Amino acid sequence: MAPVITLTTDFGLADHYVAAVKGSILSVNPHATIVDISHCIRPQDAEQAAFVLACAYGYFPPGSIHVAIVDPGVGTERRSLALATAGGVFVGPDNGVLSTALPDPLRPEASAVPSTVSLPETVRAYSLTDSRFHREPVSPTFHARDIFAPVSAHISIGVDISELGPAVRDIIALPPFRAEAAADGSLIGRVIHIDRFGNLITTVQAEQLPAGAMVDIAGRVISALTSTYAQASGLTALVGSCGYLEIALNGGSAEKELGAAVGDPVIVRTA
Amino acid sequence: MAPVITLTTDFGLADHYVAAVKGSILSVNPHATIVDISHCIRPQDAEQAAFVLACAYGYFPPGSIHVAIVDPGVGTERRSLALATAGGVFVGPDNGVLSTALPDPLRPEASAVPSTVSLPETVRAYSLTDSRFHREPVSPTFHARDIFAPVSAHISIGVDISELGPAVRDIIALPPFRAEAAADGSLIGRVIHIDRFGNLITTVQAEQLPAGAMVDIAGRVISALTSTYAQASGLTALVGSCGYLEIALNGGSAEKELGAAVGDPVIVRTA
Amino acid sequence: MAPVITLTTDFGLADHYVAAVKGSILSVNPHATIVDISHCIRPQDAEQAAFVLACAYGYFPPGSIHVAIVDPGVGTERRSLALATAGGVFVGPDNGVLSTALPDPLRPEASAVPSTVSLPETVRAYSLTDSRFHREPVSPTFHARDIFAPVSAHISIGVDISELGPAVRDIIALPPFRAEAAADGSLIGRVIHIDRFGNLITTVQAEQLPAGAMVDIAGRVISALTSTYAQASGLTALVGSCGYLEIALNGGSAEKELGAAVGDPVIVRTA
Repeated sequence: MAPVITLTTDFGLADHYVAAVKGSILSVNPHATIVDISHCIRPQDAEQAAFVLACAYGYFPPGSIHVAIVDPGVGTERRSLALATAGGVFVGPDNGVLSTALPDPLRPEASAVPSTVSLPETVRAYSLTDSRFHREPVSPTFHARDIFAPVSAHISIGVDISELGPAVRDIIALPPFRAEAAADGSLIGRVIHIDRFGNLITTVQAEQLPAGAMVDIAGRVISALTSTYAQASGLTALVGSCGYLEIALNGGSAEKELGAAVGDPVIVRTA
Repeated sequence: MAPVITLTTDFGLADHYVAAVKGSILSVNPHATIVDISHCIRPQDAEQAAFVLACAYGYFPPGSIHVAIVDPGVGTERRSLALATAGGVFVGPDNGVLSTALPDPLRPEASAVPSTVSLPETVRAYSLTDSRFHREPVSPTFHARDIFAPVSAHISIGVDISELGPAVRDIIALPPFRAEAAADGSLIGRVIHIDRFGNLITTVQAEQLPAGAMVDIAGRVISALTSTYAQASGLTALVGSCGYLEIALNGGSAEKELGAAVGDPVIVRTA
Repeated sequence: MAPVITLTTDFGLADHYVAAVKGSILSVNPHATIVDISHCIRPQDAEQAAFVLACAYGYFPPGSIHVAIVDPGVGTERRSLALATAGGVFVGPDNGVLSTALPDPLRPEASAVPSTVSLPETVRAYSLTDSRFHREPVSPTFHARDIFAPVSAHISIGVDISELGPAVRDIIALPPFRAEAAADGSLIGRVIHIDRFGNLITTVQAEQLPAGAMVDIAGRVISALTSTYAQASGLTALVGSCGYLEIALNGGSAEKELGAAVGDPVIVRTA
């Protein structure tokens, strides 16, 4: 069975872009299994793409190929990469969107901007320069269709990523999705994603939560966590299905209730 | 050929939820054929999910597996079920969303709220308690990914639903999508769904329509039915492709023309 | 390997329509590979469907089957057609949406409205009248599900299109997506599509562009073309990935910047 190819992009669902990518994949591997993760990433928001992919890729079969494309620098000198890790193969531009492939300790400090990090021995990475695996002619504005799609399809039929171009030993990475510890022992995180239900997903990881956690957000205090949405009466906090602290409103939208937005701070303290 | 697995949810298309479900299915059955019915069900609206699924499932091959997930009670005591009928296999939470599997006479009276109904001999039903068919650990907030997806994938590779847990003999069902007969012989229905074109799909079933039907809706009277959209000049009523009376505006939106909403009453009389 | 079936419709993603089409295809060919091109075509806009399909179909494997359905005249006397060309097989109503199958010189003059054109020897075309390949009963309002879907599925399993009904030698076609040459040597095009990024895709073909092109749009003059989005500071013009002149705003939306809409004129001159 050939590995699954997943797609995470900011292309939206109305235009022809996603279809052209899929056609380009199927032209190389007519048997490819292609799964959309999301095409509704905010335009040019590499961090949201990295986060959404981080929440989904672990549920795919080992060896799946995850193509992540948010690519405002398409056609410039930014590199195109394929990375192989124990978690799968990741393909996309080198602008932070591939951070998902790296464990937290390898990513820059939480306060840092996207920056270049060295890759450990356990991650193999190659620059996608070999045109044998591209679709010619390559449009300067649509590498997804002409480079990332055919490259991922070639990987799915057994081409080793070392054939795709020269090895690289560093990539651009985003800080981990993880709250920072303040001097007083509290955790300082932020809203990283708001889902369709208006749940606020934060950067506070489940394993960071102290016993007896209280949550401050948007001037409100949530004094205890629940384990399900339905247990709560009104606003609640719980560990969501991706392993991050989430703020939710039972039967409603926490986003609307709090007037919250991506980037809003969240503080976790103990009573 | 393994049966098709269809998905009907309120997860939306922007987040990672649908992808995690698909990855979870493919991790059990890498050859699964998965088809989206809709992920744009209004959040937590089990009735809309049941209706949309009712309009689509009959067009899939016999034996297809229909997963329907609108699940505000996820993680609570509400049961998770699989039902096998002559129409296919239905998988989801026991909150009314699985009503689609039952013929109208088995569902509660039209005026009743969702309620528990006994299952006939022709419907086999099981509670999804056997963790061998789940993805561990099971998140208390995402049974779609950790229970319904792997269970449906196991069914698709030949696991009989009787292996999934203990048999159940009742489920929670919604009233049928069917107009009620008034004392004066008229039919009283309501708008159950509004489609992308602004067509108002009602609960009046084609077989209920009298000869010479006239339709009252939103203060307007439609004095005759047409058989196509294009035949009409202005507002019209016709039997739609799902077998329900529909109100449409040729070249426009009946929803906008009438300021209509789901739940609005519609009355059918004879001249 | 059976050919891919692509779908381009105005059905949207919230309703059951796309799923019913897919179920109908899979009921004939359970192994069908179905790819969505777009279901977000503006309701009843055959030209947008033809354009979006034109931008995508060439990237699919040769012999793919492209089903294009924008069909306000469903159930009336308008014909249903299948066309085979060197570019693939095209299936849909005869209202202009199938124009994509024809090269520009065979389509009506740019200033003309949709009109009937004769087909060359190289295009085989048949009217879909043989009910053996339909799903019975055929709803008068949903030929996509009951005619176009099963017909395309039958083609995918090897039925030759000549079996589907009588040959036809003309179809209704739209003018080509191509700018007109004015008396003073300038090119007069229009905005044909606006994508998710707010890029304005115009009818000016790359091969029409003179050296030293300047672009007039919405009262603004763009004095030089770039080859990528990222090269530009502010508003720019470039040849997009489909081969048409595009107006873009680096890091923003040209649509919003210019208050532009589909249909807006664009003029290309030389300095």
